[in-house]
Amino acid sequence: MEITAQHVWMMIAAAMVLLMTPGLGLFYGGMTRAKAALNMIMMSFISAGIVGVVWVLWGYSMTTGEGILGIFGNPFANFGLQNLMGSPDLIKAGFSATFAIITVALISGAIADRAKFSAWAVFVPLWVTLVYCPLAYMIWGGGLMSAGGAITEAFGQVIDFAGGAVVEISSGTAALVLALIVGQRHGFAKDPNHRPHNVPFIMLGAAILWFGWFGFNGGAATTAEQAGLIWINTLVTPAAAMLSWLVVEKIRHGHPTSLGAASGVVAGLVAITPSCANISPVAAIGLGLVAGQPAAGLWT
Amino acid sequence: MEITAQHVWMMIAAAMVLLMTPGLGLFYGGMTRAKAALNMIMMSFISAGIVGVVWVLWGYSMTTGEGILGIFGNPFANFGLQNLMGSPDLIKAGFSATFAIITVALISGAIADRAKFSAWAVFVPLWVTLVYCPLAYMIWGGGLMSAGGAITEAFGQVIDFAGGAVVEISSGTAALVLALIVGQRHGFAKDPNHRPHNVPFIMLGAAILWFGWFGFNGGAATTAEQAGLIWINTLVTPAAAMLSWLVVEKIRHGHPTSLGAASGVVAGLVAITPSCANISPVAAIGLGLVAGQPAAGLWT
Amino acid sequence: MEITAQHVWMMIAAAMVLLMTPGLGLFYGGMTRAKAALNMIMMSFISAGIVGVVWVLWGYSMTTGEGILGIFGNPFANFGLQNLMGSPDLIKAGFSATFAIITVALISGAIADRAKFSAWAVFVPLWVTLVYCPLAYMIWGGGLMSAGGAITEAFGQVIDFAGGAVVEISSGTAALVLALIVGQRHGFAKDPNHRPHNVPFIMLGAAILWFGWFGFNGGAATTAEQAGLIWINTLVTPAAAMLSWLVVEKIRHGHPTSLGAASGVVAGLVAITPSCANISPVAAIGLGLVAGQPAAGLWT
Repeated sequence: MEITAQHVWMMIAAAMVLLMTPGLGLFYGGMTRAKAALNMIMMSFISAGIVGVVWVLWGYSMTTGEGILGIFGNPFANFGLQNLMGSPDLIKAGFSATFAIITVALISGAIADRAKFSAWAVFVPLWVTLVYCPLAYMIWGGGLMSAGGAITEAFGQVIDFAGGAVVEISSGTAALVLALIVGQRHGFAKDPNHRPHNVPFIMLGAAILWFGWFGFNGGAATTAEQAGLIWINTLVTPAAAMLSWLVVEKIRHGHPTSLGAASGVVAGLVAITPSCANISPVAAIGLGLVAGQPAAGLWT
Repeated sequence: MEITAQHVWMMIAAAMVLLMTPGLGLFYGGMTRAKAALNMIMMSFISAGIVGVVWVLWGYSMTTGEGILGIFGNPFANFGLQNLMGSPDLIKAGFSATFAIITVALISGAIADRAKFSAWAVFVPLWVTLVYCPLAYMIWGGGLMSAGGAITEAFGQVIDFAGGAVVEISSGTAALVLALIVGQRHGFAKDPNHRPHNVPFIMLGAAILWFGWFGFNGGAATTAEQAGLIWINTLVTPAAAMLSWLVVEKIRHGHPTSLGAASGVVAGLVAITPSCANISPVAAIGLGLVAGQPAAGLWT
Repeated sequence: MEITAQHVWMMIAAAMVLLMTPGLGLFYGGMTRAKAALNMIMMSFISAGIVGVVWVLWGYSMTTGEGILGIFGNPFANFGLQNLMGSPDLIKAGFSATFAIITVALISGAIADRAKFSAWAVFVPLWVTLVYCPLAYMIWGGGLMSAGGAITEAFGQVIDFAGGAVVEISSGTAALVLALIVGQRHGFAKDPNHRPHNVPFIMLGAAILWFGWFGFNGGAATTAEQAGLIWINTLVTPAAAMLSWLVVEKIRHGHPTSLGAASGVVAGLVAITPSCANISPVAAIGLGLVAGQPAAGLWT
């Protein structure tokens, strides 16, 4: 079939989301000590490598089709995307692959400075297969929490347009657990003045994340009105969160910082994701102002 | 309504224009002394933060609709984009927001090394509200210089496809005025050998600017022929200006420089913007060759 | 005519391909010694400058239309794109320009540390005119190796969807010849521990290349099924090649490196280009696993 506007939008959005992964690597990498920075960037890269392959082989198959107990799809039913050959749904498979990739990469920030690369290389495919794929199936793919699923019937549907639960809660939970496992970083308590080693990298990383997030939030929009609302909200919540964070810094420390601006943007991006298609731009500004507050506090 | 090709084009163009702002931060930041670089990048970031919020609240409203004396729109008529809810014109509002953001960011280069961040944070919302919005209204939004406006009737229409007057003359004028106010940078006269501290940043910034400028110039195109012509001209004028600048450097100093290449690209981008939809590619090459000349001379 | 989805796809793809050129500059520049890095980035920039102008003036004309002996088109028949004025084919001319630019830039890696900039500035327009344009004409533009061409009739058609022969074999051959001419780099044999001076640049460069390559491989797709397959393959071959390269490094040296990850990605991108529209995703994974092997060996 002919390439439609929606195909184009999704293909470019997918490329933008893939670019978020090295953007995240720069954002995290700039925050660590210099010797750990490459390790952080590397953890983002390898996430793209491993998840890209896993997704095409069995990951995508596990998030669609006839499910097993409503929890995950059959990994072999569409192994290697065999059922999609000659179908434009290959574009959807590509878009969804980039979501899995960035979700895993998000976790890596929690174990900065402390993870062995080889342990990470084992964790990534296991977590994607055992945690991410079932979640994506349950919420988006026809499982328990999708429209018509058992949990939805009982409790109402989870509204998660662009991945608040599938992407952010799942990665956040994993990050917290991993951080608890690997413990505090060596010498961190002794070095209260730990400073990010490369702030321009952080800012460039935040800028790339912002750019890519328009694809992340918007790529699955189905109408122009919805796409427009998502676009505006993806602009304005990070903008407001940045201002909010900088004001907090100004009040507490006397001056706003570059790190605060970049962190505010990312906090705003995370905050708007689940509801990006469902709140007004003014509410999105309010959300951003709130999102920048507690997070800014955590840095003090 | 369904997402059309034009919607997709404008949404991606808008994301590309937003990416120009940190690109500009790198371009400017790399040129300053190291300690001022973060400040420059930060001024670009905060422009996105402040203008993003202002635009959604009252800025967009001031550039459209029934005007006051043909000079600016009513800031409350469409406060918070309330009238656009459920309209695909939200996409246009997003696209126009990125124009306001990059225009303000452009000004910051004029006060490198010398501006207090807090003064900048006050200047930005005032300038957008009092200068940018009226100009955008008058030329694009139905005001005095639009089709049918009083000035247009008397003197003919201003042709400003992608923002030569609204974006560049306005930011250039503001930059000149600010530079005069803040004065020469401290110690600059004593340091005639001042050199940019990070040339790779400058080049990366110029590359990002070039990439984003295709969205800046092209995003509002309404036909494929026009879009194609704009695309070609946005490629070829910076290309020619880069060559021109490097030849001038070669003749005057014996060798072309990386800084010259990056500066030539940006000079060409600025030069082609107003007429990008109205001249032939050969004329665009000629324009680039000229644009690279006087600017290159300014660096000697 | 109205802007179609295919126009939008090609215009953005073209901008993405143009961004590959500075991405390549960062990738190459990070690998050299510090003092050569700017020179590498500069060689990429100037490629865009020279080829952009050449392409609009006579290059595009040489790759289309009535050919001379089936080898190249008439450089004056469409000089300055005069025949395309008012035609949406200006978009195709822009897209093809970025291919010529990146092809030339690819060559520059072979002469890192050793080329005079002025010699490069002479080489570029000559090579594009005398080598690239005839090749592009013969394979894509209606020449000897196109459908119906003499060589095609005799030996079958060259399948080169996204530029395996036109872009990669041509640039690779040129690179090899130039490397032989300029010889080994000074002091290289004495410095067996030569290390890339800036690995984050290499990784950022590889990331930008990967992003842009979706436009490079996909921009000319004519159906959604084809575009989707290309997208998936452009994701998964570099992913697999990265893994393969890192495994080889782990086995041979005991630990995988960031440089290896970035190099694997680029090796995979190069490997998938010619067949990106013609093999299944599983085959693309296999291709990536192979592509990462010999290349990884070369670094030992």
